[in-house]
Amino acid sequence: MSRLVKDSKKKIGVSPGSAVFIGNRKAHSVNISIFDYNESACTERTTKKIEDCFPFKDTPTVTWLNIDGLHETHAIEAAGKEYDLHPLVVEDILNTHQRPKIELYDDYIFVSLKMLSGVNDSYMVESEQISLILGKNFVFSFQEKEGDILDSLRVRIREGKGRIRKMGPDYLLYAILDIIIDHYFLVLEKIGDKVEAFEEELMKEPKSDTLHEIYTLKREILFLRKSVWPLREAVSTLEKCESDLINEKTSPYLRDLYDHIIQVIDAVETTRDLLSGMLDLYLSSVSNKMNEVMKVLTIIATVFIPLTFIAGVYGMNFDFMPELKWKYAYFAVWFVMVMIGLGMLKYFRNRKWL
Amino acid sequence: MSRLVKDSKKKIGVSPGSAVFIGNRKAHSVNISIFDYNESACTERTTKKIEDCFPFKDTPTVTWLNIDGLHETHAIEAAGKEYDLHPLVVEDILNTHQRPKIELYDDYIFVSLKMLSGVNDSYMVESEQISLILGKNFVFSFQEKEGDILDSLRVRIREGKGRIRKMGPDYLLYAILDIIIDHYFLVLEKIGDKVEAFEEELMKEPKSDTLHEIYTLKREILFLRKSVWPLREAVSTLEKCESDLINEKTSPYLRDLYDHIIQVIDAVETTRDLLSGMLDLYLSSVSNKMNEVMKVLTIIATVFIPLTFIAGVYGMNFDFMPELKWKYAYFAVWFVMVMIGLGMLKYFRNRKWL
Amino acid sequence: MSRLVKDSKKKIGVSPGSAVFIGNRKAHSVNISIFDYNESACTERTTKKIEDCFPFKDTPTVTWLNIDGLHETHAIEAAGKEYDLHPLVVEDILNTHQRPKIELYDDYIFVSLKMLSGVNDSYMVESEQISLILGKNFVFSFQEKEGDILDSLRVRIREGKGRIRKMGPDYLLYAILDIIIDHYFLVLEKIGDKVEAFEEELMKEPKSDTLHEIYTLKREILFLRKSVWPLREAVSTLEKCESDLINEKTSPYLRDLYDHIIQVIDAVETTRDLLSGMLDLYLSSVSNKMNEVMKVLTIIATVFIPLTFIAGVYGMNFDFMPELKWKYAYFAVWFVMVMIGLGMLKYFRNRKWL
Amino acid sequence: MSRLVKDSKKKIGVSPGSAVFIGNRKAHSVNISIFDYNESACTERTTKKIEDCFPFKDTPTVTWLNIDGLHETHAIEAAGKEYDLHPLVVEDILNTHQRPKIELYDDYIFVSLKMLSGVNDSYMVESEQISLILGKNFVFSFQEKEGDILDSLRVRIREGKGRIRKMGPDYLLYAILDIIIDHYFLVLEKIGDKVEAFEEELMKEPKSDTLHEIYTLKREILFLRKSVWPLREAVSTLEKCESDLINEKTSPYLRDLYDHIIQVIDAVETTRDLLSGMLDLYLSSVSNKMNEVMKVLTIIATVFIPLTFIAGVYGMNFDFMPELKWKYAYFAVWFVMVMIGLGMLKYFRNRKWL
Amino acid sequence: MSRLVKDSKKKIGVSPGSAVFIGNRKAHSVNISIFDYNESACTERTTKKIEDCFPFKDTPTVTWLNIDGLHETHAIEAAGKEYDLHPLVVEDILNTHQRPKIELYDDYIFVSLKMLSGVNDSYMVESEQISLILGKNFVFSFQEKEGDILDSLRVRIREGKGRIRKMGPDYLLYAILDIIIDHYFLVLEKIGDKVEAFEEELMKEPKSDTLHEIYTLKREILFLRKSVWPLREAVSTLEKCESDLINEKTSPYLRDLYDHIIQVIDAVETTRDLLSGMLDLYLSSVSNKMNEVMKVLTIIATVFIPLTFIAGVYGMNFDFMPELKWKYAYFAVWFVMVMIGLGMLKYFRNRKWL
Repeated sequence: MSRLVKDSKKKIGVSPGSAVFIGNRKAHSVNISIFDYNESACTERTTKKIEDCFPFKDTPTVTWLNIDGLHETHAIEAAGKEYDLHPLVVEDILNTHQRPKIELYDDYIFVSLKMLSGVNDSYMVESEQISLILGKNFVFSFQEKEGDILDSLRVRIREGKGRIRKMGPDYLLYAILDIIIDHYFLVLEKIGDKVEAFEEELMKEPKSDTLHEIYTLKREILFLRKSVWPLREAVSTLEKCESDLINEKTSPYLRDLYDHIIQVIDAVETTRDLLSGMLDLYLSSVSNKMNEVMKVLTIIATVFIPLTFIAGVYGMNFDFMPELKWKYAYFAVWFVMVMIGLGMLKYFRNRKWL
Repeated sequence: MSRLVKDSKKKIGVSPGSAVFIGNRKAHSVNISIFDYNESACTERTTKKIEDCFPFKDTPTVTWLNIDGLHETHAIEAAGKEYDLHPLVVEDILNTHQRPKIELYDDYIFVSLKMLSGVNDSYMVESEQISLILGKNFVFSFQEKEGDILDSLRVRIREGKGRIRKMGPDYLLYAILDIIIDHYFLVLEKIGDKVEAFEEELMKEPKSDTLHEIYTLKREILFLRKSVWPLREAVSTLEKCESDLINEKTSPYLRDLYDHIIQVIDAVETTRDLLSGMLDLYLSSVSNKMNEVMKVLTIIATVFIPLTFIAGVYGMNFDFMPELKWKYAYFAVWFVMVMIGLGMLKYFRNRKWL
Repeated sequence: MSRLVKDSKKKIGVSPGSAVFIGNRKAHSVNISIFDYNESACTERTTKKIEDCFPFKDTPTVTWLNIDGLHETHAIEAAGKEYDLHPLVVEDILNTHQRPKIELYDDYIFVSLKMLSGVNDSYMVESEQISLILGKNFVFSFQEKEGDILDSLRVRIREGKGRIRKMGPDYLLYAILDIIIDHYFLVLEKIGDKVEAFEEELMKEPKSDTLHEIYTLKREILFLRKSVWPLREAVSTLEKCESDLINEKTSPYLRDLYDHIIQVIDAVETTRDLLSGMLDLYLSSVSNKMNEVMKVLTIIATVFIPLTFIAGVYGMNFDFMPELKWKYAYFAVWFVMVMIGLGMLKYFRNRKWL
Repeated sequence: MSRLVKDSKKKIGVSPGSAVFIGNRKAHSVNISIFDYNESACTERTTKKIEDCFPFKDTPTVTWLNIDGLHETHAIEAAGKEYDLHPLVVEDILNTHQRPKIELYDDYIFVSLKMLSGVNDSYMVESEQISLILGKNFVFSFQEKEGDILDSLRVRIREGKGRIRKMGPDYLLYAILDIIIDHYFLVLEKIGDKVEAFEEELMKEPKSDTLHEIYTLKREILFLRKSVWPLREAVSTLEKCESDLINEKTSPYLRDLYDHIIQVIDAVETTRDLLSGMLDLYLSSVSNKMNEVMKVLTIIATVFIPLTFIAGVYGMNFDFMPELKWKYAYFAVWFVMVMIGLGMLKYFRNRKWL
Repeated sequence: MSRLVKDSKKKIGVSPGSAVFIGNRKAHSVNISIFDYNESACTERTTKKIEDCFPFKDTPTVTWLNIDGLHETHAIEAAGKEYDLHPLVVEDILNTHQRPKIELYDDYIFVSLKMLSGVNDSYMVESEQISLILGKNFVFSFQEKEGDILDSLRVRIREGKGRIRKMGPDYLLYAILDIIIDHYFLVLEKIGDKVEAFEEELMKEPKSDTLHEIYTLKREILFLRKSVWPLREAVSTLEKCESDLINEKTSPYLRDLYDHIIQVIDAVETTRDLLSGMLDLYLSSVSNKMNEVMKVLTIIATVFIPLTFIAGVYGMNFDFMPELKWKYAYFAVWFVMVMIGLGMLKYFRNRKWL
C-alpha cells in the first residue's frame, strides 16, 4: 500500500511551494554530472557543488545537468533560484510521490515521471522518480539516486553517434524520455514472462499460493497503470504544445514516443485482462480438481454403505433367522454383495459419474 | 446509508432559496473569527455577532471571516444580505448535504466541499461541510463546527510565514482548499494502512468478519468518491475561469491543487480495485481452506468404510462360515485390512489427493 | 417488466402525430384547475371543460393550467389546437410511456418527466408521467391522475409566499420541477432505509428470500435510473437554451435544479453499487454459514467412523481371537477408542478445523 | 453465431463496388411495387420488370418504389445506373450483412437497417435487411423478401389518411423508418414477457435448462444491440444533416424517431442488466436449494453414526463385558441412544442448522 | 504472451531512427515485385535488388513496389533514402511489433497494420505486419514474408478488371487495405465457428479442458482487439485527412472501408461477450452436474445409515434382549427396515430432492 498513498504527513500545514524532501533517501550523497556539447565538441564534468552548474546557464551549447540525490534540498533550491524556477516546481522535484505530469512555463518545461526497473529474479517493479526541466539551451534532470539507465545515452553523446549532438536540448529531453519508456517494455516483458509461467502452472497443477501471486501481480499492474496512464497525456501535451522550446524537427520523434506509450498502455491493459482471466481459470481449476476428488471418495463410501448394511443384518442375534442355518447362505450373501457392488459401479459408470 | 441520501424531508414544499438549516447541529454556539491582514499588519478578532463582520466589507485589506456553526440561520441570512449573496447560495451554505461544487457569480465565487478527517483508531471517515465565498477582498468560510484543521493556516497568517500575507484573497482561498485536500491524503493513508493489514490477514488466516469489514471499507470508499470526484471539476473550473477575482499569479497554485485532487482520485480508485481484488482473494482463501478440511475428513471416512464392511462380514452369524474356524484367520483379516488401508492411502497420495 | 417496455401495440400502424392515449387510465374523469396570478392578485378556478382555459391564452398574467387525467384525448387535442402545439407534442402528452425529455419549439418549451412517489410500507416506486408546456405567459401541466404533490406549490401561490408571485411562468415551471425532484429524494431515502435494513439483516442472519428482495430492489433502481438520467440532459438543455421564454433571473434556480438531479443520480448509482456489494456479501455469508455446518457435521462423522470400525473388529466371530479372552480387554478397547477420539479432536483443533 | 459473422468468403478478392448478392435467398422472385402520389391522387402498380420504374424518375409526384427480393443482381444494378447510385451503394444494398448506417450523397441519401420481427411462440428474433434511398422525389426501398410490416403504411397512402399524402418523400422515408422502429418495440415486448416469465420461474423452481435459455436470450439481446445502437447515430445524422432532401417540417418527426430509438436502446440495455441479474439469482437459487438438501442429509447421517458406534460396541464379543449381564442394560442402551439422538437434534436446532 | 509484449531488448540504448530489424525472420530472401500501370498498360517485374525500383520514382504511371522480407535492413534503408522517408518511418517498417497506425507526412502517408490469417484446423490466428507508403505516384508495401493474400489484387491489376487501373495510387492503397480487412472477417468466421461448436459442447457435455480452450480463445480475441481497434482511428484519419495524395473520388471507398472495420470490431466485441457468457455457462454446468451426482450419492448413504444402525442394535450381545427370542422378530425387523427405507425415499421425492 505504501506505494499507493504515501507519507503526506510530512507536508501538511507547510506553506505551499516550500522546498521539503518527501520520500526515502536513496542516495548517499548528491552527485552532479554536467555534459556540455554541440555538434563539434563535448565537455563532461562531475561535481558535488550545485554552483558549478551556473556558468553553463547562458552558453549557446546544449547543457545536460544531471543531479543524483534529492535529500540536500538547499542545492535544489539554489538551482531553482538561479534558473528562475517556480517554487512549486522545486517542491514537485523534491516530492518523489508525484503523479507523472508535464507543466509548461514561459521559459521552461517541467516533466516529472517514473523510471521503472525490474528487480532481479522477481516481477516486483522498482520505481524511481525523475524530474526533467527543458530550458532554452539546457536540460536539467533530477534523480533520486545514481542510475545506469541513462548511461547508454551518455555514450551516444560522448561518441557523437546518431543525431543527438546535431540537435538541440528538446531532442535531448526526447532521448531521455525514450530510454525511460524503453525500460517500461523491459519491465512488462518480465511480468509477461511471469504471467506465461503462471498460465502453464495453472494448466498443469494449480497451487494455493498461485492465488496470492496473481493478486500481487495485479497490484503491481495497478501500480504500473498509475505510472503510465498520465504519461500519455503528458507526452501528448508535449507534442502538441506550441512552445518555442520544442523544435518542429523533434516533433516526429515525440509522436513516436507517444506511440510507444500507447503500446505500453496496451500491454498493461492486456496483462490486466489476462490476469483476471487467470483468476477465473485458477478458481475453476481448483474447484474441478476438488470435485473430482470428492466424487471418487463419495462413490467409494456409497458403494460400501449398503454392503455394510447387509453384513449388519446377518450379524443380528435373533434366535430365529432361517438364512443363518442354510449351508451356502454365507457364500450366497458374498455373491449378492459382490453383485450389488458391481451393479452400483456399473450404474455410476453408465451415468458418467465415474 | 444516512450519509448517502439525507433528510431531504425538512425542505420539501418550502420555497426555493429559503434559509433552512439541514443537517445535524454539531456546534454548541456560533463562533465567528475575523482575520484582517495585508503584508505589513494582521488583526485578529473573535465574536459571536455577525454584524461585527460588516465593517470589514470595504476595507482594502484581505479579510477572512470564518463562521463555525450553521444552526443560527438568521446570522447567515444577515451576512448573505449584507454581502449581496444570492438566496440560493445562502440555502446551499445551510444545507450540509451538498454535493461539492463551485458557482461563479459576478461579484463572488461560491465553493462548497467536504472536510474529511479520520476518527481515531478506525478507518471510518468523518465528514464536515465547508462553504467558501471569495469576494473582492474577503473570504468567507462557513463550517459546521469548530475545527482545528485550519489552525496551521492561522499560524502562518499570524507569523507572516511564506507568501500568504503578500497575496490576495484568492491565494487565501487556495490555501484553505490546499489544507483540506492534504487531509484527504491523511484519511486515505489510514484506509491504506487498514487495507494493508487486511491483505496480511487474508494471506494468513481469513476470518469470517473480514468480509463485513471489507464491505464497510467499500462503503467508506464509495462515500469518499462522492466527495472527491466533483471536486475535480470544481477546481478545474476555478483554475480556468476568467474571473477578476482570481489573480493570474495564483493560477500555478490552483493547477497544483488540481494535481493533488487527481492524486486523491487515483488513490481512491486504486483502493477500490484493491478491495475488490481482496474480496476475490478472501472468498477463494475461505473456499480453499474449507476444501482442505473436507478432503482430509472425507479421506479418513473413505478409508475406514471398506474396512468396517470387512469387519461386518466376519461379524455375521451364519452357521457355516469356513474362515471363522481357521486358526490364523483373525490375524489374516487384520493383515488384509491394514493392507487395504495402506493401499488406499498410497493410491490417494499418488493421485495427489492427500 | 411491464414498466420497462410497454404496450406499444396500441400505436403501431397509426399515423404519427395522432392523438391516442397510451397507458392505464388512472383518473375517473378529467379535472382542470386554473391559476391566474400576478404579483398583486391570484384567481383560482376548477372546471371540467377544456374550453374554459382558452380565454386565459392572451392575458398578461401568469396562468397555470393543470389537467388531471389524459384519457379524454379530444380535450387534449383541442387544447393543442388552440395553443398551436405540434401534433407530435400532443401525441407525447398522451403517451404515458415517454422517456423524460425536453423539446424546444419557437413559441413554447415542452418537458415530459416522471413524478415518483413511494408506496406506503414498501420500497416499490409508483410513477406517473407529467408533461409541462411553458408558453409566453402560461404553464400547462398534464398529469395522469389527481396528485397532491403540487399542493404545497398551490398554497405558496395562493398565499403569495416566497418569490413565486413576483416572477414569470418560467419560474413556475422551475417550481414544479423542483417539487418533483424533491420527491425523488423522498423515494431514494425510502430505498436507502430498506438497503440499510438489508445490510443489518445480512450481518446477522441471511435469509433465502433476501436474495429475491435484493433482486427486486435492483429492478426498482434500474427503473429509477431510466427516469433520472435523461432528466439530467433535459434540465441542462433548459438551463443553457437561449429561449426568450426563460428569464435570466431564473437561470441560477435552474442550475440549482441541475445540481439536485446530479445528487439524485449520485444516490441512485451509489445504491446500485451498494446493492451489488450486498449480493456478494449475501452469497458469501450463506456459503460461510453452510461451510460451518458441513464442517462440524463432517468432523462428528469422521471421529466416529474409525471407532465404529474398531467395534466392528471385535464383533467378528472368529474362533481364535486372543484379545477376546483377556480380562480387561473390553476396558482396554474403550480406553483406546476414547484416546483415538480425543486425539483426532485435538488434531482437528490444532489445525484450526474446529 | 452465423448471425454475428457471416459468409464473407463469397466476396473476398472481388473488386470493390461489384454487385454480388450476399445472404440467403429468401424470396422466390423479385416483386416491384410502385406508389406514385401527391395530395390529390395516388397511382399504384406492381411489376416484375425494373425498367417499369424508370419513367417515374422525373415526375414531380412522390414515388415509392419497393423491391422485394435481392437475388437478381442485374435488376438492382440497372436501377443503380438509371438513378446514378454509387457502385458501393449498390454493393451495400445487395450485401444483407450490413451494419445499420446512413450515407449522405449529393443527390440522394442511403439508409440501411434491420427490420425485426418476432417468430411466433418464441423469443427468437427474425431479422431482414431493408435499404432505403431518398432521392429528390422518390424513395426506393429494397427488402430481402415480401413483408407485411409496411402494409399499414400502404393503406394510409391509399386512403390519404394523416399527413402522408400532403408531404414529400422525406416524410415517406420517416414513415417507413417509424414503422420499422415500432416493430422493435413489439420484439422487445415479447422478450420482456419471456424475461418476466423467467423471473417467476426462478422465484419458484429453478430448472437446469433455464440457464441455457437465459444464455440464448442474452445472445438474442447481443444481436439486437448490434442492430439498434448504430441506428442511433444514423437517425441523428439524418436529423442534423443540412441536405436539401430533408424538409425542415419533417425535422420534428425525425427528432421523435430519434427519441424512440433511444427508448429502444434503453429497453435493450435494461433487459441486459435484468438478464445478468437473473443469472446471479439462478445460480444462487440452485446453490441454496442444494445446500438445503445436503444439510438435511448430512444431519441424518451425523445423528446415526454415533448411535451405530454404540450398537457396535455392545456387539463386540469380549468374554468379559459386565454390561452385557445386567438385566436392564439393553433398555438402558436404547434410552442412552435416544437421548443422544434427541440431544444432537436439539443442538442442531439451537444453532439454527435445521 | 510473446505476442503481447515483444523482444524490445534488441533496441534499448540504440539511437532512435536506427534501422534495426525487430522480429522473427520469416522469409528466406528479400523479394521485390514491381507493378507499373496506367489505364492502358501494365508492366510487371520481380527483382532482388532494391535499386531496380528507383527508376520508377518519377514516372507518371502508378507504381506498386512490394517488398517481401525485412531482414536485409540496408535495402530498406536505401529505399528510405531514395524516397526521402523519415528515419523513424524506416525504423517502424523494420520493427514488426508496431501497433497499427497511420502517419501523415508532407510527401507521403505511412500506414502500418497487421495482416491476419487463420492457421489450418485451428482457431489460432497468424499475424504478419505490413507497412504501406503512399507517395505521389507510387505505393510501397513491406511484408515480413511472401504472402498470397494480395494475389487476387495482382490478378485484377493484370487483367484490368474493375476500376483499379483507372484510378490512382490512393485507390491502390485502399484496395490493399480492403483485402486485408476482408481476411479479418475470414479469421473471425473461423473463431465464430469454434465458439458455436463450444456452445453445443457446453449444452451437452462440458469437459474440463473446455475451460482452457475458452481461455485460449479469449487470449486470441484480446490479441485481435489490439490489431483492430487502432485501425479504426487510422482509417478514419485517412478518410478525413485533407492530403493531396487522397483523391476525393476515393473517399467513398475509404468510408466503406471504415464501415468494414467497425463491423470487425463489432464482431470481436460480440465474440468477447459470448465467451464470457460461455464461461459462466460452463462453470454452472459443471457445478450443476456435480451437484446432481453428490445429491444422489448422499441420498443412498443417508437411507442406509439408519438401517445399518438398526441392524447394529440387534447385533448387540446383551443377555437380556426380549426381541431376540420372538419368533417373527427377524422378519418384523426386515419389514420395519424396508418401511423406513421406502418412507425416506418417499419423503425425499416429495421434497423434490430426488
